[in-house]
Amino acid sequence: MTQGEEQIIDMFRRIVWHPGALGLSDDCAVLPSIEGDLVLKTDAIVGGIHFFDDDPAVTVACKALRVNLSDLAAKGAKPIGFLLAIALPERLAEEWIRSFAEGIGEDSAFYNCPLLGGDTDRTHGAATIAITALGTVPPGAMVARSGAKAGDCIVVTGTIGDAVLGLALHRDINFAKCWQLTDSHRDHLLRRYLLPEPRTTIANAIRQHASAAIDISDGLVGDLEKLCRASHVGAMIEVAQVPLSNALSAVLHFEPELLKAILTGGDDYEILCTMPPHHLPLFRAAAESSGVMVTEIGQITDQQKVHFLSAGRALTFDGTSYSHF
Amino acid sequence: MTQGEEQIIDMFRRIVWHPGALGLSDDCAVLPSIEGDLVLKTDAIVGGIHFFDDDPAVTVACKALRVNLSDLAAKGAKPIGFLLAIALPERLAEEWIRSFAEGIGEDSAFYNCPLLGGDTDRTHGAATIAITALGTVPPGAMVARSGAKAGDCIVVTGTIGDAVLGLALHRDINFAKCWQLTDSHRDHLLRRYLLPEPRTTIANAIRQHASAAIDISDGLVGDLEKLCRASHVGAMIEVAQVPLSNALSAVLHFEPELLKAILTGGDDYEILCTMPPHHLPLFRAAAESSGVMVTEIGQITDQQKVHFLSAGRALTFDGTSYSHF
Repeated sequence: MTQGEEQIIDMFRRIVWHPGALGLSDDCAVLPSIEGDLVLKTDAIVGGIHFFDDDPAVTVACKALRVNLSDLAAKGAKPIGFLLAIALPERLAEEWIRSFAEGIGEDSAFYNCPLLGGDTDRTHGAATIAITALGTVPPGAMVARSGAKAGDCIVVTGTIGDAVLGLALHRDINFAKCWQLTDSHRDHLLRRYLLPEPRTTIANAIRQHASAAIDISDGLVGDLEKLCRASHVGAMIEVAQVPLSNALSAVLHFEPELLKAILTGGDDYEILCTMPPHHLPLFRAAAESSGVMVTEIGQITDQQKVHFLSAGRALTFDGTSYSHF
Repeated sequence: MTQGEEQIIDMFRRIVWHPGALGLSDDCAVLPSIEGDLVLKTDAIVGGIHFFDDDPAVTVACKALRVNLSDLAAKGAKPIGFLLAIALPERLAEEWIRSFAEGIGEDSAFYNCPLLGGDTDRTHGAATIAITALGTVPPGAMVARSGAKAGDCIVVTGTIGDAVLGLALHRDINFAKCWQLTDSHRDHLLRRYLLPEPRTTIANAIRQHASAAIDISDGLVGDLEKLCRASHVGAMIEVAQVPLSNALSAVLHFEPELLKAILTGGDDYEILCTMPPHHLPLFRAAAESSGVMVTEIGQITDQQKVHFLSAGRALTFDGTSYSHF
């Protein structure tokens, strides 16, 4: 360990860490007496793929943590803490790393998910941030993708498609003019790409009511297909019911053909879940009191095929799932 | 998720995975009812830093897992499973990825540490493999760095310094001639760099006997200093007692001045531990029956300084710890 590495660890020592992290000064972290089942997720983000080199370090840090928290929330799990493995190019200024540590520190405090341990490495390539997040559920209560039943209603949180337009704007801000966006709509879409909002506050409600759930990271169409495949069911979605932000509706007004890109685009980090219809009112009430908008967009069928209906006609998609790979 | 990503996941589906991995087809893994304390480690290896681009995919895979297993062993923990986040350059052939998956599959079976989940990403930079390994110890039994007491003896597993010479040979095979190495000695040193051997079989003995332990990844001198700092103690090492392989002794015969590089060099992945002297015979017996050589190399002192004595004189080191960073 060089002085540089020790300095970086010191920056992370200033953020919120779990008592089991042993002050980030042992080989391993230790977690005594976990109640319930342990839920585990690892997800990495890579410079030039999942974020841009000139993205603020704070948003890179937050995104790295939040994409993992989004998965925990979809499974109905409460965060315990996270481990962080970062490979950073030498050219990155100390200021960048400091902002990164501060960003991830603020988020870990906000989401009550403290740092458990980590590893810092140098790379000759792109900055790579791999996070492993741990959460808990009561025994046997994790919400899998595989529990959806024909007749269940299909619900999504928040709004769909903002992030893929935010990514387009991030690549070329001139789209804002093409789409005649107000500054506030432009900023909304950009923010939705840069800073996903994991729906951690409704994890309990999902656990109580959902038969199956998945976080929408690879696009609504593709992720719904994954859930249906795992559950051996199909789905019928009313496209008109899919919740869209005002900003996105404004864009669609100019370019209606973007609809498919919106439905297949990635990085939403909303949750899609299914539940028997009689659960919906209580789930809605719980979500509302957690400040999360939820919308019913369709039903699970027994046909093992996913249909998206728009004005009575079925949409077809070329690529059904978005990927950075 | 593209077809490419799905193909990669399919390759990993063929390896040993934990029932809690849910067939690698849900958002998260789930581990019910963990007995004892959970021990956690994350460590990444990066192409061009921790391995060479032309290293066999199998050894890269094994090294990535083993560096984490080495930490679990040093803490006295039994492996549960691991999570794998990989960022791979597009130029990597499918064959490389397949060999990587096979290598990590064989090791996960051998070390009884099945795959729990993962994430595959593309990168424009170097291949980066981040592993998070989970293990267990009985409640309160994790062996920390901080428990060493004055009077404890200091013990290491295996032999020290091979890997740093293996790295030198890997960079320039002509060193084999300079050092007049036999083929078997050359291969031994190269292998020790490429394929660390985590001392998982003596984890129980470490837990039963050691007052403190650390895995030697950043060099004997530096890691002993870390253990002493955490324990608020010092140490006195008899350099003549430090166990060296025949291959390394042959090199030292030609270049005695390499001694300091050997003591400060990294990538040993042996375990250094401390224990009251009356524990040593039982620890030795347990290690021997596990097939691991252990050697007493010195004593813990109350002077809060680490001394390396060679022929009665104290060695001094410029850099006391090896780092890739």
